[in-house]
Amino acid sequence: MNFKTLYLPILLISNYYCAQTNDSLFIREAFNLALKEGKAYADLKSLCKDIGPRLSGSAEAQMAVEWSYTKLKSYNFDSVYLQEIKVPHWERGTKEAGWIKSENGELTKVNLLALGGSISTNGILEGSIVEFNTLQALKEASKSEVEGKIVFLNQAMDETQINTFKAYGGCYPIRGDGAVEAAKLGAVAVIIRSLAMPIDNHPHTGSMHYDEGVDKIPAAAISTADAEYLSELLKTQKAKFVLEMDCKIFPDATSYNVIAEIKGVENPNNIITFGGHLDSWDAGEGAHDDGAGVIHCMEALRILKESDYKPKNTLRVVFFMNEENGNMGGKSYANWVKEKGEVQIAALESDRGGFSPHGFSCDGSSIYLNFLDSIAHLFMPYEMYEFDKGYGGVDIGPLKQIYEGIPLFGFIPDSQRYFDFHHAPSDVFENVNKRELELGAGAIASFVYLLDKYLDTLKQ
Amino acid sequence: MNFKTLYLPILLISNYYCAQTNDSLFIREAFNLALKEGKAYADLKSLCKDIGPRLSGSAEAQMAVEWSYTKLKSYNFDSVYLQEIKVPHWERGTKEAGWIKSENGELTKVNLLALGGSISTNGILEGSIVEFNTLQALKEASKSEVEGKIVFLNQAMDETQINTFKAYGGCYPIRGDGAVEAAKLGAVAVIIRSLAMPIDNHPHTGSMHYDEGVDKIPAAAISTADAEYLSELLKTQKAKFVLEMDCKIFPDATSYNVIAEIKGVENPNNIITFGGHLDSWDAGEGAHDDGAGVIHCMEALRILKESDYKPKNTLRVVFFMNEENGNMGGKSYANWVKEKGEVQIAALESDRGGFSPHGFSCDGSSIYLNFLDSIAHLFMPYEMYEFDKGYGGVDIGPLKQIYEGIPLFGFIPDSQRYFDFHHAPSDVFENVNKRELELGAGAIASFVYLLDKYLDTLKQ
Repeated sequence: MNFKTLYLPILLISNYYCAQTNDSLFIREAFNLALKEGKAYADLKSLCKDIGPRLSGSAEAQMAVEWSYTKLKSYNFDSVYLQEIKVPHWERGTKEAGWIKSENGELTKVNLLALGGSISTNGILEGSIVEFNTLQALKEASKSEVEGKIVFLNQAMDETQINTFKAYGGCYPIRGDGAVEAAKLGAVAVIIRSLAMPIDNHPHTGSMHYDEGVDKIPAAAISTADAEYLSELLKTQKAKFVLEMDCKIFPDATSYNVIAEIKGVENPNNIITFGGHLDSWDAGEGAHDDGAGVIHCMEALRILKESDYKPKNTLRVVFFMNEENGNMGGKSYANWVKEKGEVQIAALESDRGGFSPHGFSCDGSSIYLNFLDSIAHLFMPYEMYEFDKGYGGVDIGPLKQIYEGIPLFGFIPDSQRYFDFHHAPSDVFENVNKRELELGAGAIASFVYLLDKYLDTLKQ
Repeated sequence: MNFKTLYLPILLISNYYCAQTNDSLFIREAFNLALKEGKAYADLKSLCKDIGPRLSGSAEAQMAVEWSYTKLKSYNFDSVYLQEIKVPHWERGTKEAGWIKSENGELTKVNLLALGGSISTNGILEGSIVEFNTLQALKEASKSEVEGKIVFLNQAMDETQINTFKAYGGCYPIRGDGAVEAAKLGAVAVIIRSLAMPIDNHPHTGSMHYDEGVDKIPAAAISTADAEYLSELLKTQKAKFVLEMDCKIFPDATSYNVIAEIKGVENPNNIITFGGHLDSWDAGEGAHDDGAGVIHCMEALRILKESDYKPKNTLRVVFFMNEENGNMGGKSYANWVKEKGEVQIAALESDRGGFSPHGFSCDGSSIYLNFLDSIAHLFMPYEMYEFDKGYGGVDIGPLKQIYEGIPLFGFIPDSQRYFDFHHAPSDVFENVNKRELELGAGAIASFVYLLDKYLDTLKQ
């Protein structure tokens, strides 16, 4: 053995440990900045209370854009600017009520929320109810069973799924496609059981769609408790449902993605995009969905700036508009950066709430999955263990179609409580825990740091 | 290579995988039983709302014993019985108020809770305030600084600790030992900053003690928000503190540990004890501390029974009385089972709240730590990754002094929100999430099953 063969491995090992130690120290500092005098909680409170719900096209959405611009400016990032986009503009209106009418005419008022995008009922709409437990069961029904009736889609989320997003995915079709499938069989309206885990009295709204050539019928969600009650009633009698909603679709509105950057010192033209969505449903305050996500990312950029980290690449936070009912923010952003000839090297999204961080998912090739594996141990002191292949996010999704091979990362918090609040009046600031929110910001700052530092080494 | 050397490893591997598959299936079933038509959430609601807070010696504590006995009986376990014990009996009384009095006599009322075990003030007590940030700083003070004054111990929990129990441990001495150390220097009372993570208006109570030969002085907690306010005020002026409390110590009372068992079929004399504590502080409803723990264990035993598992060893749930201010339940239990000549082979405690399960800790020899390592992968589908050396629990602790080498296990849930509620009026049923609670019960049922199945193989 000569000196070189002895020395080289030691040098490499020593470099390796030095890099790992530096990374550990940086991550510790990022979490400290998040947890000690962090801004996330106060900023989320302001977004929820000074702005509130902010559905695309609303005055609140416009105020949220202004709020975001001013707030991002206050942190003295290298640049803060807006991307103008067009967004759908749907309004719930002022009339929204539903009743169960028993065979002998007794009325039970239910809590009801129109699904986003639904047409109005044009006054009071009353009909016999026909219940299905899945969208598939509705599809398999005959026209005679459904025609002229109000379809009630009563699919409960599967409690035995440990990750609640899987249970949500299983029920999603009743909300997204229920109106189209019911209308194909001649239904006059569709009522769905809210996509929520607990049995409670909040209805949960969310997007639905109509198809060309299929009649448009009104669509609304009732609470899980009301759905249970109605389903029990239907076992013994032919009840009816009565509803009125005057929701309306307006012409597309002008709105904005809000963007802030720290310029890269080595490769300023290489961009790492990370963000959440600024718009929210009109019930609640959009605290977890997705106030937490935009605040996570803004706070992560603030932490990176405050830690005096000089990124190799440009770090760009995007507050996307219109994730909830059109994803025009995400689509417009991807087209826009492509047109500008930008080099997008990675993207990350936080859109699963402000709960205790569990890890990050990766929608990308094995190079990036290996990268995820290699950094996972750095997050163990922060009780984060989930670093796997998985979904990125709705807003960053369109980048994948345009930038072949771009890795998309998703921030993964604990999912247990998310569908208590999702799209419901209960998605308010008070239901976000300060430390859980702050830990998420620390985790994202740390992850973006590692992406920035190591992405170019992976491509060699 | 002969046939035997080829065949034996295949046989062993095949047995191993078969056992692992059976274990995985059992655990999946246990979680399903917890999450689908589980009883935990309704039982916790009943304990919190039909009984409420249940400090040792109170009428509510006695009702909690009766509630537990009846509830455990309703699940048809092999036996349900009581162990009579003696417990301390301290009452808060009806007078409890505190004010900050500024130099010019302006009064600010603060939220105040006597610490458990404190003597009364005997009418209104007023004194100048002297502030210390740690118990050590108080210990190092001179008598002239402290004598005749009210000591204000204002140590904030360290937000940068990722596990909040570590931050709690760091502050614990100001509550436990503050009165003794202040009295040694002639203080007339001690006021502590609540051991709580958030800045809010709830005071958090908890136990304190007096030492023989040291004057007893009144001790109380104020909220973190009031502590911050008072500390700011003291920077500019010599404020006073005024308080009245008529709390009182009564003679020891008779109470009970409540016990339920499923008899072992192979070694009925070998006992696995698992439980939480039935008593709680008098503020709030003892929902997380430790309603969640006793419900976790009762539900785990119910799941084990419902799954038709026939345990090798006797599985015994104990609802310990008096963990909060004396641990007479834990101490009496250990002595009692020793006197009866019982063989205790392992013990587990749940006393860290009803949050998303993270894992189990082990206070035991390397044999048991290796066991913990070997089963950890079975819990990964349930997002549980923390299987390490660590503390068991207060109630099961005395078993260690009596049964040499007995392994003690602790159930470890997410800790981020625990010290928002701990010992405070906010520790109510509404702050426990159904799924998080249920997942804990599934985890404990699974863990007890594995203990029962494999403990004897470890000793070979």
